[in-house]
Amino acid sequence: MTPILPSEVDVLIVGAGPAGLMLALWFSRLGIVTRIVDKRTDKVFSGQADGFQARTLEILDSFGIGERVWKEANRMFEVSFWSPNPDGRIQRNSRAPNNVASLSRFTESVLHQGRMESFFLDGITASYPHPASPTHEIRVERMVIPTSLSIDEKKVDNDDAYPLTVTLQHLSEEEATPTQRLSNLSDGLFRSNLANDDVPSMIEQLNGRKNMREEVVRAKFVVGCDGAHSWTRKTLGKDFEMHGEMTDFIWGVLDIVPITDFPDIRNRCMVHSASSGSLMIIPRENKLVRLYIQLTEVSAGGGRVDRSGITPEAIFKAAQKIISPYKLEYHYCDWWTAYQIGQRVGDKFSKSDRVFLAGDAVHTHSPKAGQGMNVSMQDAYNLGWKIGLVCKKILHREILSTYELERKQIAKELIAFDHKFSKLFSGRPAKDVMDETGVSMEEFSTTFNMSHMFTSGIGVNYKPSALVAKPPEHRIVKSHLEVEADQIAAHGRAQSSLFLATNCTPGMRFPSFQVLAQSDARPWQLHRKMPSDGRFRLVVFSGNISNPTRQRLVNDLGAWLSTDVLSRYPLMALSPGSDPHTSTMKFKPDHYPSIIDVLLIHTAKRAEVEILRDLHEVYHPFDPKLGWDYDKVFADEESYHDGNGRAYEGYGVDPDEGALVIVRPDGYVGLVASVEKEGWEEASKWFQGVLRSI
Amino acid sequence: MTPILPSEVDVLIVGAGPAGLMLALWFSRLGIVTRIVDKRTDKVFSGQADGFQARTLEILDSFGIGERVWKEANRMFEVSFWSPNPDGRIQRNSRAPNNVASLSRFTESVLHQGRMESFFLDGITASYPHPASPTHEIRVERMVIPTSLSIDEKKVDNDDAYPLTVTLQHLSEEEATPTQRLSNLSDGLFRSNLANDDVPSMIEQLNGRKNMREEVVRAKFVVGCDGAHSWTRKTLGKDFEMHGEMTDFIWGVLDIVPITDFPDIRNRCMVHSASSGSLMIIPRENKLVRLYIQLTEVSAGGGRVDRSGITPEAIFKAAQKIISPYKLEYHYCDWWTAYQIGQRVGDKFSKSDRVFLAGDAVHTHSPKAGQGMNVSMQDAYNLGWKIGLVCKKILHREILSTYELERKQIAKELIAFDHKFSKLFSGRPAKDVMDETGVSMEEFSTTFNMSHMFTSGIGVNYKPSALVAKPPEHRIVKSHLEVEADQIAAHGRAQSSLFLATNCTPGMRFPSFQVLAQSDARPWQLHRKMPSDGRFRLVVFSGNISNPTRQRLVNDLGAWLSTDVLSRYPLMALSPGSDPHTSTMKFKPDHYPSIIDVLLIHTAKRAEVEILRDLHEVYHPFDPKLGWDYDKVFADEESYHDGNGRAYEGYGVDPDEGALVIVRPDGYVGLVASVEKEGWEEASKWFQGVLRSI
Repeated sequence: MTPILPSEVDVLIVGAGPAGLMLALWFSRLGIVTRIVDKRTDKVFSGQADGFQARTLEILDSFGIGERVWKEANRMFEVSFWSPNPDGRIQRNSRAPNNVASLSRFTESVLHQGRMESFFLDGITASYPHPASPTHEIRVERMVIPTSLSIDEKKVDNDDAYPLTVTLQHLSEEEATPTQRLSNLSDGLFRSNLANDDVPSMIEQLNGRKNMREEVVRAKFVVGCDGAHSWTRKTLGKDFEMHGEMTDFIWGVLDIVPITDFPDIRNRCMVHSASSGSLMIIPRENKLVRLYIQLTEVSAGGGRVDRSGITPEAIFKAAQKIISPYKLEYHYCDWWTAYQIGQRVGDKFSKSDRVFLAGDAVHTHSPKAGQGMNVSMQDAYNLGWKIGLVCKKILHREILSTYELERKQIAKELIAFDHKFSKLFSGRPAKDVMDETGVSMEEFSTTFNMSHMFTSGIGVNYKPSALVAKPPEHRIVKSHLEVEADQIAAHGRAQSSLFLATNCTPGMRFPSFQVLAQSDARPWQLHRKMPSDGRFRLVVFSGNISNPTRQRLVNDLGAWLSTDVLSRYPLMALSPGSDPHTSTMKFKPDHYPSIIDVLLIHTAKRAEVEILRDLHEVYHPFDPKLGWDYDKVFADEESYHDGNGRAYEGYGVDPDEGALVIVRPDGYVGLVASVEKEGWEEASKWFQGVLRSI
Repeated sequence: MTPILPSEVDVLIVGAGPAGLMLALWFSRLGIVTRIVDKRTDKVFSGQADGFQARTLEILDSFGIGERVWKEANRMFEVSFWSPNPDGRIQRNSRAPNNVASLSRFTESVLHQGRMESFFLDGITASYPHPASPTHEIRVERMVIPTSLSIDEKKVDNDDAYPLTVTLQHLSEEEATPTQRLSNLSDGLFRSNLANDDVPSMIEQLNGRKNMREEVVRAKFVVGCDGAHSWTRKTLGKDFEMHGEMTDFIWGVLDIVPITDFPDIRNRCMVHSASSGSLMIIPRENKLVRLYIQLTEVSAGGGRVDRSGITPEAIFKAAQKIISPYKLEYHYCDWWTAYQIGQRVGDKFSKSDRVFLAGDAVHTHSPKAGQGMNVSMQDAYNLGWKIGLVCKKILHREILSTYELERKQIAKELIAFDHKFSKLFSGRPAKDVMDETGVSMEEFSTTFNMSHMFTSGIGVNYKPSALVAKPPEHRIVKSHLEVEADQIAAHGRAQSSLFLATNCTPGMRFPSFQVLAQSDARPWQLHRKMPSDGRFRLVVFSGNISNPTRQRLVNDLGAWLSTDVLSRYPLMALSPGSDPHTSTMKFKPDHYPSIIDVLLIHTAKRAEVEILRDLHEVYHPFDPKLGWDYDKVFADEESYHDGNGRAYEGYGVDPDEGALVIVRPDGYVGLVASVEKEGWEEASKWFQGVLRSI
């Protein structure tokens, strides 16, 4: 396909880092006309962010690219805490698991950002050809910067209008290459928060040039994923400034293949030395190890950092000092940088729900907790399907306001965590309990060990809105946004009955347990049946359908869903990413039967159930070319080879009660309701509040 | 790299199907100068073989390509047996697991052959650049046929000679395309055993042409992987003819997306109808289903089959009749063929241990048991490292005779199994116990269920030889080849002590259990630490090394290995496939310290062991650029997230006794010996019998 670059697009994404690529991936799967531009000449090749939360891996897996990270990354299982003994010599104080086992089937892993960017690009390519986008493919356009953005406020409420106008400048290779970036090692501070914003000088340079390669693009939406110095944010004006403060702590980072007799070099380690500062060890893929090294001899006192003192040699010497008396040398260094610890967050994440900011463009913090890239990607993961389904006129446009509602809260939690953790880690260890200015090593390790829910990304719990039906008692204190969201749901908002599925919390991600496919006894993690393809899932926990009363109930539910629900919500052109885990599909249906995908999980004996004989067609939809779909019904039963998933137990559902759970396209729980008739009404209300019916 | 096609090669492979590609993959990993030619214009795109045994998946995983099959294939978990009820209507008689759980971490899977060939080609490409092969890369040369082969018998015992001379003809696209192959569907019998050999007519055609594109290649070894009509085999003369017989049973095969109300269409099914013949259902990837259909209206009576009656329509009608009263239709057909059931095997698998035959070139049988492609690949897997290490002068050349010793036995077992199974499946089901000419349905399902050890490929148990040290009592009856092998081991052959590792049987594949990496607590399937890179593994089951006596013992063993064993066997240029599961290695050592890789598995508490402090350097080899290797020591302990591997229990090793196990480069157990001094001598003898020392 010839890459036609349209001058009218649904979405323009500024910046092709992790947040921008996550958005592009979503839009490629949904068949949205999108352009994505980046000022740099190429993607990242080494260093930069490297930590993947369990939740991020779940998300990448839902697009079919998680396995590649999971395979190549170094997985971290154990963390060791080192601190000075009474003589001042460092010793291992304790070990702890680096993750809590029950949170996710994934664990925290590290792999350099450039590798992950490759997987995103491959994942975008794999979306095409796309039935909803026959002539357009998303490709990252490098060496392109926006230089102006205007919003036609008169058009922002018009679904079909392109209210945004952006001027793009195409740079030459020379213009796009900052002078300091002659090689990775020549100035590791490139991309650091100690580096200056280079965009203004780029733009200034452009003013002098003769052959302007300028282009005007009209867009329905613009998303600024353009990092801490975000041009998009600055263009939106003063209201969008970030607030927060920098500290005096400066840290260096080295990616090396270490030669050392330090015994825990392949473990994650937190080392507090007596008086030389602290060190974090992150074992990486390919025998690399990342060292985060406190630079006690460089300070940001008075706000100005002397960058000339920050060299890889100085950083390495600081590391040797902290880890002494163990020896540390290296032959190969892959990357280095340094940064100043500080936390900032923006007040507003969007302008008129037409221009959005995501990732570092609205929140910055220090990298050591391995959160930054994850939270950035998850901002984009939250936003992508909302914009995409609004463009397709499937979702009420007002749902876009939930982006700021949901993600600003997470940014604030991140900043509070980083503030606390950085302070404890940069502080001098207390000599004894009487040493009040020192940091208690017990408090430090306890803080670390208590934070798994947060640092894994599994703890995210979004506020109530049309998308998140909490039970009434959770909504007593309402912010103005929630009130607004209430007004959207003019029909009266759906309410959850939490006790029906005690491990499915509205606003939190729907967890994954193993279930058995009714049709062929294959064990599946249920997440694998819920790929990121833009569909909502209605998970029917039916209980024992061998019981005639139960069977009649789920079939009545099926008939009702079929006539009163699924038919009201539009068909959807199938994305080739529908089963992202296989790439050899030769023969495909043309569309999904509905934007709502119904999955049934029963507790009958698998051998006593026949899908066609016992169940309403909503649970085995018929396609004239493919026959019946046998892939929607699952048993909660012991597998032949892989044990018992105990899914009902895991989800907290009583088989005698059953439950209905609505899961959003991003995997977060929207509603928990009864499988009996009163629950059907709640589900119906929920969908009415979110989806446009035909 | 420019593809230079050398006219002197270590190995010439004839045929780029699964056997030829497996050999090419081995040689690419070992850096062997190899050419591989195939008469066809392209690889297979649909249909053909599709079944992957558990053992095949283990082997593919050892090259880093197993996960791709595992991910895309359809895995089969359950088999249903259908047969006529007293009224003659088919009904489900029983269900059974399709695999035995404890045999392997993989289960039988199906994916079409062409996809797998792609993975092989990618796996070969991933081997380069190769330090031992800086100017040569293996690439499949298509549209090339050999037309003459001569062996200079005077040179066959000379390590440095090229005793084989082969003439290759380069075909035009037209010459390489058989007329019948205009499209997959136009003649499904292309590649079937009902098709004629097309090579003689190709060669005849060549004689008339003007611009001969002929080339002469000299080789140390030639391997014929050129299928049932093998040109290589025919060229070797009468001694190499295959023996066996064809039956009158003709079966058709269809790959379709079925539209049916047959309830078990996504299960593997064995259907015997009352009088319309039998049907096997193999659910495939991408909603495809393969049907093996007995064609009762076509017969091979008198040896001649009327091919004109075999059309996809006729095959489909036969299927409809068998499955009636259930309805069966389809909209999409991916592939079809038909074949005549029969079994043949060759007497000789090699000529002068310089020309070898593998796969269908030496044994043919019917495809239904999903064995053919697997046994072919495993022939090549057995042969590849042997030829490769002989070329590198690491292995005694006499070891090559073990190829026929080991693989002919497997071919014979396969043929016996196929004979029995085909007869039971093609027979008319007995009406009752008095119906003696009918097949008992109980006998059929029992035979199927008893055959898992064989059909999974895990049951392979090679005969004693220099490579397989059985205890004396296993060697009472000796074939002449074993006697020959005995003579090779002039130093006296090593003997195994089976009771020390009761689940590690010399001649069978070393199983895989989960162990924990000492350095970072990561759980590993031990197979993942034994990639197919040409190295032998010495697995040291040390028991509890926190016990000072045990610790002294393993360190004495380490010192002895270091001075008396490892130093005697050559260094080896590192293959980039050394860790086939990551592809981002930027910085690598230049070589392995030895062809013998020492792995230590202990039962001490992991937290009480420090690798550098407690263990001899043989267990943590030092590299000046990479530092110490922390990846050789494992604990048999509960993991943080993935349970307890119970490896000692799995391998059948008593922690108080310990054991030494030698594992061959193909993963088969060579020796089980004591970890005490008497075992060291056995290990030393074993290596002397196999490896050339320096």
